[in-house]
Amino acid sequence: MAHGQGRQRVVIEGVRPEIDGGRFPIKRTIGEDVIVEGDAFADGHDVITILLRYRQEAIQKWTEVPMAFLGNDRWRSSFQAVELGRWRYTITAWVDRFATWRRDLVKKIESGQDIQLELLIGATLIEEAAERGNARDRQLLIKTGKDLRSKAIPDQERIQMAVSADIETMMAKYPDREHASTYERELTVVVDREKARFSAWYEMFPRSWSLTAGRHGTFKDCEASLPYIASMGFDVLYIPPIHPIGETHRKGKNNALSSSPEDPGSPWAIGAQEGGHKAIHPELGTVQDFRSLIEQAQRWGIEVAIDIAFQCSPDHPYVTEHRDWFRIRPDGTVQYAENPPKIYQDIFPLNFETDQWRELWEELKSVIVYWIGEGVRIFRVDNPHTKPFAFWEWLIRDVKQTHPEVIFLAEAFTRPKVMARLAKLGFSQSYNYFPWRNTKSELVQYFTELTRSELRECLRPNLWPNTPDILTEHLQHGGRPTFMARLVLAATLGANYGIYGPAFELGEHVPREPGSEEYMNSEKYEIKQWNLENQGSLREFIGIVNSIRRENPALQNDWSLRFHQTSNDQLICYSKRTKDNANVILIVVNLSPHHVHSGLLELDLESLAVDPKAPFQVQDLLAHTYFLWEGPRNYVEIDPQSVPAHIFRIRRRTHTERDFDYYL
Amino acid sequence: MAHGQGRQRVVIEGVRPEIDGGRFPIKRTIGEDVIVEGDAFADGHDVITILLRYRQEAIQKWTEVPMAFLGNDRWRSSFQAVELGRWRYTITAWVDRFATWRRDLVKKIESGQDIQLELLIGATLIEEAAERGNARDRQLLIKTGKDLRSKAIPDQERIQMAVSADIETMMAKYPDREHASTYERELTVVVDREKARFSAWYEMFPRSWSLTAGRHGTFKDCEASLPYIASMGFDVLYIPPIHPIGETHRKGKNNALSSSPEDPGSPWAIGAQEGGHKAIHPELGTVQDFRSLIEQAQRWGIEVAIDIAFQCSPDHPYVTEHRDWFRIRPDGTVQYAENPPKIYQDIFPLNFETDQWRELWEELKSVIVYWIGEGVRIFRVDNPHTKPFAFWEWLIRDVKQTHPEVIFLAEAFTRPKVMARLAKLGFSQSYNYFPWRNTKSELVQYFTELTRSELRECLRPNLWPNTPDILTEHLQHGGRPTFMARLVLAATLGANYGIYGPAFELGEHVPREPGSEEYMNSEKYEIKQWNLENQGSLREFIGIVNSIRRENPALQNDWSLRFHQTSNDQLICYSKRTKDNANVILIVVNLSPHHVHSGLLELDLESLAVDPKAPFQVQDLLAHTYFLWEGPRNYVEIDPQSVPAHIFRIRRRTHTERDFDYYL
Repeated sequence: MAHGQGRQRVVIEGVRPEIDGGRFPIKRTIGEDVIVEGDAFADGHDVITILLRYRQEAIQKWTEVPMAFLGNDRWRSSFQAVELGRWRYTITAWVDRFATWRRDLVKKIESGQDIQLELLIGATLIEEAAERGNARDRQLLIKTGKDLRSKAIPDQERIQMAVSADIETMMAKYPDREHASTYERELTVVVDREKARFSAWYEMFPRSWSLTAGRHGTFKDCEASLPYIASMGFDVLYIPPIHPIGETHRKGKNNALSSSPEDPGSPWAIGAQEGGHKAIHPELGTVQDFRSLIEQAQRWGIEVAIDIAFQCSPDHPYVTEHRDWFRIRPDGTVQYAENPPKIYQDIFPLNFETDQWRELWEELKSVIVYWIGEGVRIFRVDNPHTKPFAFWEWLIRDVKQTHPEVIFLAEAFTRPKVMARLAKLGFSQSYNYFPWRNTKSELVQYFTELTRSELRECLRPNLWPNTPDILTEHLQHGGRPTFMARLVLAATLGANYGIYGPAFELGEHVPREPGSEEYMNSEKYEIKQWNLENQGSLREFIGIVNSIRRENPALQNDWSLRFHQTSNDQLICYSKRTKDNANVILIVVNLSPHHVHSGLLELDLESLAVDPKAPFQVQDLLAHTYFLWEGPRNYVEIDPQSVPAHIFRIRRRTHTERDFDYYL
Repeated sequence: MAHGQGRQRVVIEGVRPEIDGGRFPIKRTIGEDVIVEGDAFADGHDVITILLRYRQEAIQKWTEVPMAFLGNDRWRSSFQAVELGRWRYTITAWVDRFATWRRDLVKKIESGQDIQLELLIGATLIEEAAERGNARDRQLLIKTGKDLRSKAIPDQERIQMAVSADIETMMAKYPDREHASTYERELTVVVDREKARFSAWYEMFPRSWSLTAGRHGTFKDCEASLPYIASMGFDVLYIPPIHPIGETHRKGKNNALSSSPEDPGSPWAIGAQEGGHKAIHPELGTVQDFRSLIEQAQRWGIEVAIDIAFQCSPDHPYVTEHRDWFRIRPDGTVQYAENPPKIYQDIFPLNFETDQWRELWEELKSVIVYWIGEGVRIFRVDNPHTKPFAFWEWLIRDVKQTHPEVIFLAEAFTRPKVMARLAKLGFSQSYNYFPWRNTKSELVQYFTELTRSELRECLRPNLWPNTPDILTEHLQHGGRPTFMARLVLAATLGANYGIYGPAFELGEHVPREPGSEEYMNSEKYEIKQWNLENQGSLREFIGIVNSIRRENPALQNDWSLRFHQTSNDQLICYSKRTKDNANVILIVVNLSPHHVHSGLLELDLESLAVDPKAPFQVQDLLAHTYFLWEGPRNYVEIDPQSVPAHIFRIRRRTHTERDFDYYL
């Protein structure tokens, strides 16, 4: 037992948030609260003082704030991290002898006990504190101690002195912390920028954005498309791999095993004569063009995210320069990707079990660092679950050490524990099962899990109704109402969401074959021509939804999500709000694309910060209509053929009737 | 990153049981299963091998057993600790290249792919394993490798060879564990003897057991009482502190502030001229008498437990010899115990904040060691929550290092977190809120928490309907039916339970004053004379209940407890069973002492291992009656004036009707 540890009488346990016994950090964005709770108690009945302490990881000095008692030996406090990067927090506590003495003194006086000796004990405690005080306070404490001992001063006066708020404050300034206990673990919070929590992504294939039919689209063409993307209100433009595409075993249209010379190939077959993961596909333009795209996008409030797919086409320079990073088959050829019985001869996986794993890791990190150098700050990572977990944990931590503003999105549609692990080890955002959660019960269950379980501390879902790999059955068959409903769900259930366009806004819904989730004539294998001016485009609707998101901070967080009961299983109802309840949004979606549905909402008024005894106004931000409601039960009716959802802003009665924006 | 760690592709997390991130050990008794679960998975799709490993703490070598897949990346296995003391367990896992290869080979063959190269890859894996094999196996593996490479052998034959069960078994013997991952923490289980899990305690004050009226009872008198105690079926005899009792400020009858010379004082005011915690109160006898009591008790199957109350009367030798172990007041006197406004001038608490805390700790440990030397193996610890937690953790661990058979019972009726902490840090059994849980909903909620939450891993409840400090309101007013019902509840809800007698079996129920839980004329402050032959004594009933406990192993564990619904809130119904379902007991208690109550039980037949479509017999072990029941709904009616409970043994139909013991 270390020196003095035997006299640390306070124990601290049950500290939350804490993931896997402190093995992994929690995540917050800048300005968000880190609310910390813990159990703390000592033997016996003494009063204890408990502080939450926090600091930036690189700075040794702690900031300390008092914790409030919640009952049942539990305490709570919070802090806000004001800088990006890693912060530490823990709890420290000690037996407060002066506070104990003061409490007991009052009880003894009340029961008429003699307190002459008590005053002397208090004087000693005060004199001990004086030795810890600054020069001015020391004088004051010494004088108080002396006065408490003085029989010349009437008891009543000495008692007043002993229990005064002044001396209490002064004593709290100089506690005896010699036997303070500190929680056994320092816990970590990774603080990201706001976009890690709130973002709207637009995925597109630059090669399909040429204004000249038949020509390969370029970064310049993308620049020209920025006003279009901005008009829909997206703030992240995510483009699939931008690197040279392999020719060996190149896939043809619709993933055909053989290709014609005019087939452009899949951007995920990375690497050719012109280079690998640090090169740019010549048909897209030059590195200067890429930088220009990034800069122009910034002017439109859009950040460019690139795709990181750590795999190689047979033509990737690594294949000749670093043969030992691949598995070699007994015939001397490189092992291609396979998931028996499927084989992917156009892709060589990297062999992370190579003896040269350190060199491999460093090289892959240098890819990220290279693109950071070119101005990229958001990386969408392809299939991270097929590379070692330890690699990602090292890479992300290392990159964020110097670039804490970088955001990594994990594209891992795999088993729940694997997805959770990737979030724990550092990915800033995560793809998830949203595409396949369609019914009310599925959505309520899944989003309750995502926003209420401990997982929320590190996993930030990013919701996608579609991706180039995922055209769900619902989108195939539900028509325009389903596209609109899924957009509203993604954009309001998730503070982070995205769509793959223009396939989405143009309502592309034909699968490669029945039962497949692949698009017919997928853009992954060919250059498409999109008619952005199509009358049926959802462009304007998407623009409205994104501007509602921007204007209503309630929709910029995930954790305030609450579901409300409805009398109709085709109607889902939920709300979000800001911490101060200044902005409260209530969403109702008709999940059926076919029928008008109506029913009663059973609102949890408390979670809406609504007075149950006063009427309140709801303003539909999509339809620009207003209703006056009262109490929890209110009727709605939604026709999917018009707009399949309400996005209500709750306007509460405050002091006078005139605080309502009545619609008359 | 340590050498090679980057290639440890399996991650292991979510290991259970694990208390506070492995900070505290779990508890088991000898022969009980330690069922361990954990999540384990690798990147990608490779097959992994997962082993549970365990060992005695002092022995470095692990025993390893395979874990079974439960779904959702979760695995389970178990072991039995066959020796007392501390054991370690953890999980290790690795990517199994041969199993992966074998699985993929089969898929490739099924889809008609060419597998010539695959056979060569398999040969290499087998030849690598050969290098890890023993001499005989090595030859066999080398030959298999060579055969797999041989074009002279038909493909079909080589495939058979590659996928044979023989080679699978052989390869599993010599896995490549170079990049195995092991869970980050080694977890600990403290293995106690069976009595820690299953015990029936009888508390008594030896001084009241003299056969001669007016004489102070002695250990010799206790010996004479052993047949009486054994006839009731108790196996632990717990006696309050046996040390010399202080005279200064000695308490009189009913805790009066002053005493007459004939008052014997409270046994918890420990220490006098004759000695302290290692001495024996002369009126009880000599240390030889004490040893004789222990030996005689053993013959009756009874262990003697003593009381450890680390506090001193003003006359304790420590007060003069170790003044620095106490807090000294400004007037030079020793600080007595107080909990303002209450004061206890007959008790000096030890000051664990003394600079001499190490010496104090050592001395207190030597008290335990001393009594172990005299043959004591069970200690009931008085108010452990008023001494530092770190002290108990150190003391218990240290004592059990050399005496793993020692049992410590924590007498801490305090806040839930504090009680849990004492259990976590090492107490073998714990007093608890049972005395104040009386209604059905209170009992169901509390015992569900005790037997189903994570707390059960370390807290073993010991249930007491009464103690010398606790005469509950229910016992005061409920009469004989309440005494019987509370006995049945304690003895069947808890594998560990106890009573304070003869107050209990004689139905003592008069409080010191209305509203008090203290006994009138409490034995704590005076010598009592008990009429054990009283006609109303519950002695025989208690004997029957204890023999039912002994004969029915279902009642010897806490974790199998399941509550069953009843149609009447005055009827509580629950069951317990053995792991193999060979013994299943169903208990129904009428909680009302005043009225006959009847109702329907809604039995969870699965938890009774009863076939819902076949009749089953229930045998009331108290009334010696039998009923034939069928299905979940069955009628009961209980008159509290006769026996307020049924203790049914379930007898299931097996092969022939004759397996029933029909009562006709």
